[in-house]
Amino acid sequence: MSKFIHLHQNDNVAIAVCDLAVEGLLDVGGRQVVIAEPIAEMHKFAVEPIKQGEAIIKYGQFIGYAAADIDAGQHVHTHNCIVGDFAKDYGFCRHAEKTAYVPEAEQAHFQGYRRANGKVGTRNYIGILTTVNCSGTVAKQIAASFSYPGALDDYPNVDGVVALTHESGCGMRAEGEGYEILQRTFEGYAAHANFGGVLLVGLGCETMQVDGVLAQAGLSQSELFKAYNIQNVGGTRNAVEQGVEYVRAMLPKVNEATRESCPASEMVLAVQCGGSDAMSGITANPALGVAGDILIRHGGTVIYSETPEIYGAEHLLTQRSATPEVAEQLLERIRWWEEYTSTNGFELNNNPSPGNKAGGLTTILEKSLGAQAKSGSTTMTAVYQYAEPVVEKGLVFMDSPGFDPVSVTGQVASGANVVAFTTGRGSAFGYKPVPSVKLSSNTAVYRRMQDDIDINCGAVTDGDETLETLGQKIFEQLLAIASGEQTKSEELGYGDAEFNPWKIGAVV
Amino acid sequence: MSKFIHLHQNDNVAIAVCDLAVEGLLDVGGRQVVIAEPIAEMHKFAVEPIKQGEAIIKYGQFIGYAAADIDAGQHVHTHNCIVGDFAKDYGFCRHAEKTAYVPEAEQAHFQGYRRANGKVGTRNYIGILTTVNCSGTVAKQIAASFSYPGALDDYPNVDGVVALTHESGCGMRAEGEGYEILQRTFEGYAAHANFGGVLLVGLGCETMQVDGVLAQAGLSQSELFKAYNIQNVGGTRNAVEQGVEYVRAMLPKVNEATRESCPASEMVLAVQCGGSDAMSGITANPALGVAGDILIRHGGTVIYSETPEIYGAEHLLTQRSATPEVAEQLLERIRWWEEYTSTNGFELNNNPSPGNKAGGLTTILEKSLGAQAKSGSTTMTAVYQYAEPVVEKGLVFMDSPGFDPVSVTGQVASGANVVAFTTGRGSAFGYKPVPSVKLSSNTAVYRRMQDDIDINCGAVTDGDETLETLGQKIFEQLLAIASGEQTKSEELGYGDAEFNPWKIGAVV
Ligand SMILES: [Ca+2]
Ligand SMILES: [Ca+2]
Ligand SMILES: [Ca+2]
Ligand SMILES: [Ca+2]
Ligand SMILES: [Ca+2]
Repeated sequence: MSKFIHLHQNDNVAIAVCDLAVEGLLDVGGRQVVIAEPIAEMHKFAVEPIKQGEAIIKYGQFIGYAAADIDAGQHVHTHNCIVGDFAKDYGFCRHAEKTAYVPEAEQAHFQGYRRANGKVGTRNYIGILTTVNCSGTVAKQIAASFSYPGALDDYPNVDGVVALTHESGCGMRAEGEGYEILQRTFEGYAAHANFGGVLLVGLGCETMQVDGVLAQAGLSQSELFKAYNIQNVGGTRNAVEQGVEYVRAMLPKVNEATRESCPASEMVLAVQCGGSDAMSGITANPALGVAGDILIRHGGTVIYSETPEIYGAEHLLTQRSATPEVAEQLLERIRWWEEYTSTNGFELNNNPSPGNKAGGLTTILEKSLGAQAKSGSTTMTAVYQYAEPVVEKGLVFMDSPGFDPVSVTGQVASGANVVAFTTGRGSAFGYKPVPSVKLSSNTAVYRRMQDDIDINCGAVTDGDETLETLGQKIFEQLLAIASGEQTKSEELGYGDAEFNPWKIGAVV
Repeated sequence: MSKFIHLHQNDNVAIAVCDLAVEGLLDVGGRQVVIAEPIAEMHKFAVEPIKQGEAIIKYGQFIGYAAADIDAGQHVHTHNCIVGDFAKDYGFCRHAEKTAYVPEAEQAHFQGYRRANGKVGTRNYIGILTTVNCSGTVAKQIAASFSYPGALDDYPNVDGVVALTHESGCGMRAEGEGYEILQRTFEGYAAHANFGGVLLVGLGCETMQVDGVLAQAGLSQSELFKAYNIQNVGGTRNAVEQGVEYVRAMLPKVNEATRESCPASEMVLAVQCGGSDAMSGITANPALGVAGDILIRHGGTVIYSETPEIYGAEHLLTQRSATPEVAEQLLERIRWWEEYTSTNGFELNNNPSPGNKAGGLTTILEKSLGAQAKSGSTTMTAVYQYAEPVVEKGLVFMDSPGFDPVSVTGQVASGANVVAFTTGRGSAFGYKPVPSVKLSSNTAVYRRMQDDIDINCGAVTDGDETLETLGQKIFEQLLAIASGEQTKSEELGYGDAEFNPWKIGAVV
């Protein structure tokens, strides 16, 4: 068990992972540090002398200024570390660095489903989508016809038939943001590479018309895509029978898909956190960040989201933006969120709370960097709207709320084919048709929820792993999962109740 | 097949139910009317001479002024019927009339479940509720353990174990309207008389805390009510096992409930329309209104809702209000809706659309009365917020959107123990734990969706029923359904996917 964690070689602070007593001697990367005053668990101490006015560095980045001279071994917190009235320095692209790609010959591979349109799937499901809450029961009954044990025994290459239902689609404006978000979500799922076949079921009189979705998405009926309305086929029983027939007809064709070797550059990884604790920012998020950096060096894509969690520290991302246009797109989203939340009586505030401060977090930059650690260190190449198709490689940002099911639904619609989720409190999480790997920030929750958690990032504070070794293992596990290895959430049957498109606007 | 419908004895117009040719002779309640010009299907004609400036009466109510002298048999529409810039006359309580109750000895009865708190249920389910989207999969897996054929064979008095999951509960403000609505909804369902036992499953780190719901609702753990968090019991598998154990322990006790004779005054009927067509306002809605009037004369309660559909004609309800306070509460809700929709970029507008006008609807009053017909003719005794417990008898109004699943979820939370739904387009509709009876406005949709529709109100235009005879039959069927007779939607398995609490505010 390590007593502290030193997140980055350039950091002049380290974090205690247990209460540290005065005069304890620690070896921090070869430096001998004597603890000069009691340091509570999760609080920071200086690993070298820091002069008043010098930068405090954590995650290799600026988190505040020293308000006084600080000695090695002294506590660093609100009493001696300030951000001040710092004017936000957007510093467009200042820290954008060229990605150090691995040579093509050394690129990692996984076994994926290469689809006719060139996209690569990591699973091979048949999806049943609905335009409106009202067609949800029909969709579920169709899926249930293929969900009993043995139902798909003749189709070993089909992972399942899943109904993804939702609570919207009517009683809403027939245009505008809320409508467009829902339509983009359907479009993204209907075209998802993890679906071998798709059924879209409508009622008939809803705002979100089946025909409108098809026209918008450029979809038309085919052997592997069918769409119809309950009201046009004579009601519930006929609609269920019709759907079952459609799926039955698709199954042999969907079963023909087989896995083949695909480069890691075809992996689109959604990163997400939820139920975070004080450890999330120093174990699970940075370890996932390391794994994402490796994936990106192999040519892959990481989708980072949850806009409210970067609020107030958005310049950390504009500094990493590939171009000023990308930075400007992010700031436009920030302004949108300011209006959205103020219109709805919600105050966006990412400042450390009293509880955060008691837990050792000193400044908004430090707090934001803890969440941002899961995005790794590479250049941000693009900013997307919720559920917009991701086409750029590298690290991209997709705008979304922080609420897990809403955010991940958007990431999957955008094209994510693997999801990685960090949690400190424990999770109940899964997003069919995409596999989700779950990473605990601490060993206690891993032990308590062993059936749910795939990877224990508490191993870093236990002294069993470094962020680098763990990041490499996570990357390798992502490849295995993309190749078909089952995640805990798949074993537990998660993934349909969690489909939750972002709802914006009045329900009328 | 009747060629016209004359909705109320005081009406000076009737509605053609097929195209009427010139010189056709019709007998309208003993009056011989000669059709003076071609009248298109669904359009109005005068049944007696109407002088310029006189009132046009439909549904026994004012729908506009004659803009010219109109002869019997002439077409009445936008060319000769206007509302003008009529200042809305709220006329508080002007049309509030004493209810003509049937003598107690003649009160109708049904076979219901009388609960310990005195409330009467019409079904006997075990409900599994969730505080947050994240506990949805666990809730569904618990319910699935009791949903295979034969699972409840030892418990013949238990109607089923149903999981009612939803997409909210986190990523939201921890106070304010959106939070209170969700909490009231849980409270209403947890206390619903159609549940013999209830399980509430949370994740643990969500905004909508299990403990908060219990405290707010004054609920505590008991033999028939259990609540717990997934994170506190060691994850998904343990949470499912725990829930299954709780339900298994409840079953013998829940099975002890038996039906007994209860007066119709214990029926709380939610009325609702959706997928309406031009016939809805002249067949299904008025027939349901007659049935509700009968129920109210027997001491029962009717919950009328869907605020956007009364917008612009709210004075029709303030005139029927029991007290000025009740009328004022309705107007407060109207003002709330004006702000809610304008904040969200939605324009409330209940004026007849060009399509409505082509279909024969002339004024906003006429259109609103078509929807309002399902509320019958009695005095409005109370106005409730969404999901607020209904305690008044008679006709009450519960504020809600028009979107069926959101509106009915609120009505059930408010205490409805039977739902009646009118539709012209056809429905996919059901709300466990409460039975829903479905009424078609026309015979064509009834024939097309016979498995879905319980009662064909097209019988009125077919000439097989009058509104009065059909209203009486609906009332009798409501009693039978309340006593246990299965509705079409119950046979089809509707009722869990439709649970949809109203979501207000930003998702963050
Ligand atoms: Ca859903
Ligand atoms: Ca988060
Ligand atoms: Ca999240
Ligand atoms: Ca629901
Ligand atoms: Ca409705």
